[in-house]
Amino acid sequence: MKKYVFKFNEGSASMKNLLGGKGANLAEMMHIGLPVPPGFTVTTEACTRYYEEGKKIAEEILQQVFDALEDLEEMTGKKFGSPDNPLLVSVRSGAPISMPGMMDTILNLGLNDITVEGLARSTNNKRFAYDCYRRFIQMFGDVVLNVEHEKFEHIISTVKEKRGVTYDTELTAEDWQEVIKNYKGLVEEHTGRQFPQDPREQLVMAIEAVFRSWNNQRAIVYRKINKIPDDLGTAVNVQTMVFGNMGEDSGTGVAFTRNPSTGEKAIYGEFLLNAQGEDVVAGIRTPQNIKQLESLMPDVYRQLVDVCNLLEKHYKDMQDIEFTVEKGKLYILQTRSGKRTAAAAVKIAVDMVKEGLITKEEAILRVSPEHVVSLLHRRIDPEAEIEVIAKGLPASPGAAWGHVVFSPDEAETLGQQGENVILVRTETTPDDIHGIVMAQGVLTSRGGMTSHAAVVARGMGKPCVCGCEAISIDYENEEFRVAGLVVKKGDIISIDGSTGQVILGKVPLIDPELSPEFRELLQWADEFRKLSVRANADTPQDAKLARDFGAEGIGLCRTEHMFMGQDRLPVVQEMIMAETREEREKALAKLLDFQRQDFEGILEAMQDLPVTIRLLDPPLHEFLPDEDELKEEIAELKAKGDMENLEKKQEMLKRVKALKEFNPMLGLRGCRLGILYPEIYEMQVRAIFQAACNLAKKGIRTIPEVEIPLVSNVNELKLLRELVENIASQVISEEGVKVEYSIGTMIEIPRACVTADEIAEYADFFSFGTNDLTQTTYGFSRDDAEAKFLPEYVDKKILPENPFIVLDRKGVGSLMKTAVSLARNVKEKLTVGICGEHGGEPSSIEFCHEIGLDYVSCSPYRVPIARLAAAHATLKEKKNC
Amino acid sequence: MKKYVFKFNEGSASMKNLLGGKGANLAEMMHIGLPVPPGFTVTTEACTRYYEEGKKIAEEILQQVFDALEDLEEMTGKKFGSPDNPLLVSVRSGAPISMPGMMDTILNLGLNDITVEGLARSTNNKRFAYDCYRRFIQMFGDVVLNVEHEKFEHIISTVKEKRGVTYDTELTAEDWQEVIKNYKGLVEEHTGRQFPQDPREQLVMAIEAVFRSWNNQRAIVYRKINKIPDDLGTAVNVQTMVFGNMGEDSGTGVAFTRNPSTGEKAIYGEFLLNAQGEDVVAGIRTPQNIKQLESLMPDVYRQLVDVCNLLEKHYKDMQDIEFTVEKGKLYILQTRSGKRTAAAAVKIAVDMVKEGLITKEEAILRVSPEHVVSLLHRRIDPEAEIEVIAKGLPASPGAAWGHVVFSPDEAETLGQQGENVILVRTETTPDDIHGIVMAQGVLTSRGGMTSHAAVVARGMGKPCVCGCEAISIDYENEEFRVAGLVVKKGDIISIDGSTGQVILGKVPLIDPELSPEFRELLQWADEFRKLSVRANADTPQDAKLARDFGAEGIGLCRTEHMFMGQDRLPVVQEMIMAETREEREKALAKLLDFQRQDFEGILEAMQDLPVTIRLLDPPLHEFLPDEDELKEEIAELKAKGDMENLEKKQEMLKRVKALKEFNPMLGLRGCRLGILYPEIYEMQVRAIFQAACNLAKKGIRTIPEVEIPLVSNVNELKLLRELVENIASQVISEEGVKVEYSIGTMIEIPRACVTADEIAEYADFFSFGTNDLTQTTYGFSRDDAEAKFLPEYVDKKILPENPFIVLDRKGVGSLMKTAVSLARNVKEKLTVGICGEHGGEPSSIEFCHEIGLDYVSCSPYRVPIARLAAAHATLKEKKNC
Repeated sequence: MKKYVFKFNEGSASMKNLLGGKGANLAEMMHIGLPVPPGFTVTTEACTRYYEEGKKIAEEILQQVFDALEDLEEMTGKKFGSPDNPLLVSVRSGAPISMPGMMDTILNLGLNDITVEGLARSTNNKRFAYDCYRRFIQMFGDVVLNVEHEKFEHIISTVKEKRGVTYDTELTAEDWQEVIKNYKGLVEEHTGRQFPQDPREQLVMAIEAVFRSWNNQRAIVYRKINKIPDDLGTAVNVQTMVFGNMGEDSGTGVAFTRNPSTGEKAIYGEFLLNAQGEDVVAGIRTPQNIKQLESLMPDVYRQLVDVCNLLEKHYKDMQDIEFTVEKGKLYILQTRSGKRTAAAAVKIAVDMVKEGLITKEEAILRVSPEHVVSLLHRRIDPEAEIEVIAKGLPASPGAAWGHVVFSPDEAETLGQQGENVILVRTETTPDDIHGIVMAQGVLTSRGGMTSHAAVVARGMGKPCVCGCEAISIDYENEEFRVAGLVVKKGDIISIDGSTGQVILGKVPLIDPELSPEFRELLQWADEFRKLSVRANADTPQDAKLARDFGAEGIGLCRTEHMFMGQDRLPVVQEMIMAETREEREKALAKLLDFQRQDFEGILEAMQDLPVTIRLLDPPLHEFLPDEDELKEEIAELKAKGDMENLEKKQEMLKRVKALKEFNPMLGLRGCRLGILYPEIYEMQVRAIFQAACNLAKKGIRTIPEVEIPLVSNVNELKLLRELVENIASQVISEEGVKVEYSIGTMIEIPRACVTADEIAEYADFFSFGTNDLTQTTYGFSRDDAEAKFLPEYVDKKILPENPFIVLDRKGVGSLMKTAVSLARNVKEKLTVGICGEHGGEPSSIEFCHEIGLDYVSCSPYRVPIARLAAAHATLKEKKNC
Repeated sequence: MKKYVFKFNEGSASMKNLLGGKGANLAEMMHIGLPVPPGFTVTTEACTRYYEEGKKIAEEILQQVFDALEDLEEMTGKKFGSPDNPLLVSVRSGAPISMPGMMDTILNLGLNDITVEGLARSTNNKRFAYDCYRRFIQMFGDVVLNVEHEKFEHIISTVKEKRGVTYDTELTAEDWQEVIKNYKGLVEEHTGRQFPQDPREQLVMAIEAVFRSWNNQRAIVYRKINKIPDDLGTAVNVQTMVFGNMGEDSGTGVAFTRNPSTGEKAIYGEFLLNAQGEDVVAGIRTPQNIKQLESLMPDVYRQLVDVCNLLEKHYKDMQDIEFTVEKGKLYILQTRSGKRTAAAAVKIAVDMVKEGLITKEEAILRVSPEHVVSLLHRRIDPEAEIEVIAKGLPASPGAAWGHVVFSPDEAETLGQQGENVILVRTETTPDDIHGIVMAQGVLTSRGGMTSHAAVVARGMGKPCVCGCEAISIDYENEEFRVAGLVVKKGDIISIDGSTGQVILGKVPLIDPELSPEFRELLQWADEFRKLSVRANADTPQDAKLARDFGAEGIGLCRTEHMFMGQDRLPVVQEMIMAETREEREKALAKLLDFQRQDFEGILEAMQDLPVTIRLLDPPLHEFLPDEDELKEEIAELKAKGDMENLEKKQEMLKRVKALKEFNPMLGLRGCRLGILYPEIYEMQVRAIFQAACNLAKKGIRTIPEVEIPLVSNVNELKLLRELVENIASQVISEEGVKVEYSIGTMIEIPRACVTADEIAEYADFFSFGTNDLTQTTYGFSRDDAEAKFLPEYVDKKILPENPFIVLDRKGVGSLMKTAVSLARNVKEKLTVGICGEHGGEPSSIEFCHEIGLDYVSCSPYRVPIARLAAAHATLKEKKNC
């Protein structure tokens, strides 16, 4: 006969699938000799069978339950339904995978009109007994009989009012009796039958209710979100009641074996004297710090500390323990791994290695890379109360506060005076860069995750909330409106670029921490990971930061951001407006000086490490003003009669119109620009090699890697490789020093993936640009998709997640795999990396490891995460082997 | 010892690689007993060796040349360099693959100051002899010694002037002697040495010059364009001279064995009495029709006809023959397959099958599918003289003439009055459809091959020239300017949508012909081809036309064009402007009636054949007016104070702005629309099935295939398949009749290709949309690419051709292959077709055959081409097996 019921002493921690997490841990604790009130577990298989047999509990199972119940009676010397010394039990759900709060608990089961009197007598506490009974009816009524919780509360309120009292504790035994009478009336009215008095019937109904709760709406949704299979089923734990509410020598509480907030190795938690578990949750009385238990009940405290130590050693992890003290005796009701903050997770993992509890590998796997993201940006103090007034796209992580300004010029002026400002714009353009530089953060009402503001802010590591359509900006009156609220220039707001929240007023911020323990953990991660980690950085500052965070090179240096500086943009526009090649070359000569300085700075900061420099990528119209703005300016100039500037602007408008594209994302950009206007790329390559040569003369070794973007056909690379080689050897021979360099390409177009064998012949390295590759593989314009249909796609589960955040392994990933295998077939040692935003996302990093990439490159702030995730990938693979 | 020289009687037609085309054919003709002047061929291997040995002719080879020369002397009884009876030869190049005009010819070689007198004596014609000599010096000087041709002509002109005569024929022997003297002076001055008098030296120099000509600029470029390998080399033919310029019993000419223009089986060609070959080309005298030879030289004519018959039977193809008559004796100097018009190609191929000369397979392969394109549209009479004033993109083939109009309303009005009009617009929008319908053709100054005008015109089979940026339109003054010319409303222009030409005035047009022979050839093609051929058609008219041209179904019926009719567009806009689902459904109910009629028409026209109907694909903003236009309208309404319309337009502007996208091609369109607004697709599906049921009730069998566009993820198809199935079974059960139908998807996104196994599970058929697939695979927006960089890419040979015209096998094709194999792995019998424009392009059709597609679908006008191309693909494959 199959065993559907396990006494606690028959199970163990390894039986989670059968007994559920709670049941398995109760069994385990019993084995190691902890004071666990006895009980038994009805298995998940019983739950599954319950559903298979049309929501009926088989006789066979009931028999096993009653047999276990008899054992329990024997063990405790109490009897179920006994008028003298009644056995009372709790009935609790416990699934194999923790689903906190998803299912329900019933305490004090076994009470009825008769046993309640026995309880009163045996405890010599009538008030306690009737309080227990009314709690039971209430919980049972709610969970098993579906009577609205509110209606019970209403009955208590009525009685309290009648008595003229405020707190439950002020009610007497007689008051509770009146409450109970009314409760029973409520149940009868609601269910059409009397409240069940037979304890066995109560037990069966409760077990069934737990089984049913597996398929309540909350549980179904929770499983869907957390991808928990629907057919696991839940176990049911039936445990002898112990009472923390039997007087001042009793109590109940929760203890963490270490501080879940900081990770400090010291018992942490809280308790309430003379209380049952729900009282802690109800928040009517304020619990006391667990430390105070030491003076109140020194023995119990010492025991508890011992239990904590024992459980931690046993489970090799920080534990979250529920305990009850009944008349000076300690009982442990539950233990589980404790939830903790990212900082605590890091500290506990590192400490435990030093304590010899776990290995470095285990420590690394204990810290989730996604979890530590929060440690790498300024963030809003989680304790703070905040007033969220709107939500946009979380475009660049981190939090900031500042005075609202609507013009980049003003942002610059105030910023230079040391004021905190948040720049608020409908969208930003290259003209706004000087303002963004001096602002604490950026808020826009239009544009997606790849809008100008988002890209620039991420590049600078500045918080940014984009596409916050709820706010409507009125530049003229210098204010924005949101949900009836008017926020004026100078008002203080805060933004959280990690969540997209816009908050009224100044919020307290916590600085990013790279604690000593975190650094140590990352060093261990470095010992295991196979993937190298680089950073995407466009400035010497970012490069230095990345290096400090452990970057082993720059995987993507975007040269276009250098074109957007306030001193450069007019020259760039001059170049674009040039009518002849000569005019264009004159402007380019000026840009050459700027670019040489840029590259010297970055290459010097990354001395001895590779720096991948991507040649100009965006379409030229991105450097020109917006068409509508220009039209307005022209109208103004006309009104003023400023003929000279008018003509200039009209010329510019003409060019803006000529450069306009239907689908700029698929237009004249990337290497297509380099092929149509070779002089631009020539200038950039000259600047790179002049910079490298200048540094070489100072004894600084640099490793520039010139990268050609948007290649779809080998001939593009072939042609441009020749151009780069020509200029490089020209500059190197002019300067008379040696420079190590290589030439490679972005792989960001499906065609490049499927013809990677051809392309590899002309490339020293590949770098997957998975932002564009995701756009083209899906046929999604990111800006449009995220604004118009991606949210609905994720909602409707058409897509499991936003593929711009988590790499789509089946589609984009399959093309990447094809590319790697085609390319390595012709060039075994080809260096292959990734520099799309996925390079900093843990699940995507795991995939990159699996397909054998050499490195990932991500924003400087994500470098620690990538180091950790890369180690995870190696260790997980090892585990699966 | 290797044989480098073959006498004509030693070779054969099969030795083209070694002897070149001309040499092999001369040998062949000698074998079959035709009167070929004797000679020999120096092989292509000699040419290769010449280059291998640093541009030197090996002694061994020269020895073989001189041996062959001795044989020739023996055979002719003449002697090289003999003062009495000198042997004269022609030296001509002849590569294995014909490169017409790429290399040069030298006649009369062997003449010098002494042999010329011998020639004068032996022919008793001093003038003739000196004429020959001066011709020889001139050709030899030009081809071998690099003396400018012009300088020789100048000498003749000077002498003619001195003599006061106009024509060469008026010059006497003495005049030629003076010319020769001056020629020799010119040569000496130019080369620093005297004109070579030794005939053997002349011969060696001439052979070397032919070898060198293999690598002259013209030849290199020609080989590159025509993809001829550079290492083939050329052969050299040395042939005894015969003279057509020895009097009125001599002559020279060209004969085709059939009429190369019509294909009529009758000798065709022209000749000149008393002339050498160059005289025909020079165009100084007008040649006579070959028929006249019958009366002038009946014997020769009869011989020539015999030769023609013999050669045609021998080569089994129409021949282009060069002949010379020397003193009444016919000589054949060359034969080759004759070039012919498409109409002639068809007629000749079919006739030859009937004559038993060739098989049906051979006949099919003789007619190039690309070649017959010209037969399927109205075209400009190739004989006409035309004045091209501008060139745009050849957006929709065919030619038309008409009065210029600038407004669609006017086009409609005049068109209804029976006037021919050409609608000239900067670009067209859905608002213009009624004008396009009534116009003969459309000319736009903006937009690419997929612009609205282009797509609509191609759909209607109307000529269209797009993106003709040279013309600048002035709507206000109703005129356009181009290169200084002003064309006013009402002026007549012609356009050729096959070439992009815009022509001033009315040109004579030739109607498309599907001659009886063509129909017969296509029927034979149908016997062999494996690919089925369908048409892309959106109207009953197109469907009928396609059926007449042999379409076996509709592969793509675009429902959006039905939304653009003048009566529908306001309803569509009403639907888009709807604020609530109810409002939208009200508008949709009206559209339902329109769509049902549309589908009834098409399904009835295609009775018993499958009709693939694609649900709505373009983004909704395509149905709203242009933003700038709306703004203007609003300004006008404001000025007028028309508040009611003002508000409406302002609402519309708001919606236009809200629907605006950064990259519409990758935005909210295709099935994404169907998922966000299921009610639109529901209406369309309902219309399809109501139409099918209505026809079923009349006993008309229809086979609708519902097609979901732009799927990138299986879940999109899964969801929409359910929607289609629900509506279909609902309608079918309401109507109570049976309808065979299927549900499938476009494959037009790279991700769909690499996840085709998943997608196939929910699809009854796939149809490759290679227009979009090419855009996403390359990351090219077609409109932008064709306007901004594709032409330069093709020019610079970065791409072999425009991938939107010829399918890119290596990239797009590889994804198609992946898709087919993944899909057929899970669903062996899945129907797979193609409906992109490539479906009508022969090389792409061949590829579709190779990867095992079931059908191609193309514009009705391309159906015959596709039938032929599909047969070609099968027959070529058979050949290669």
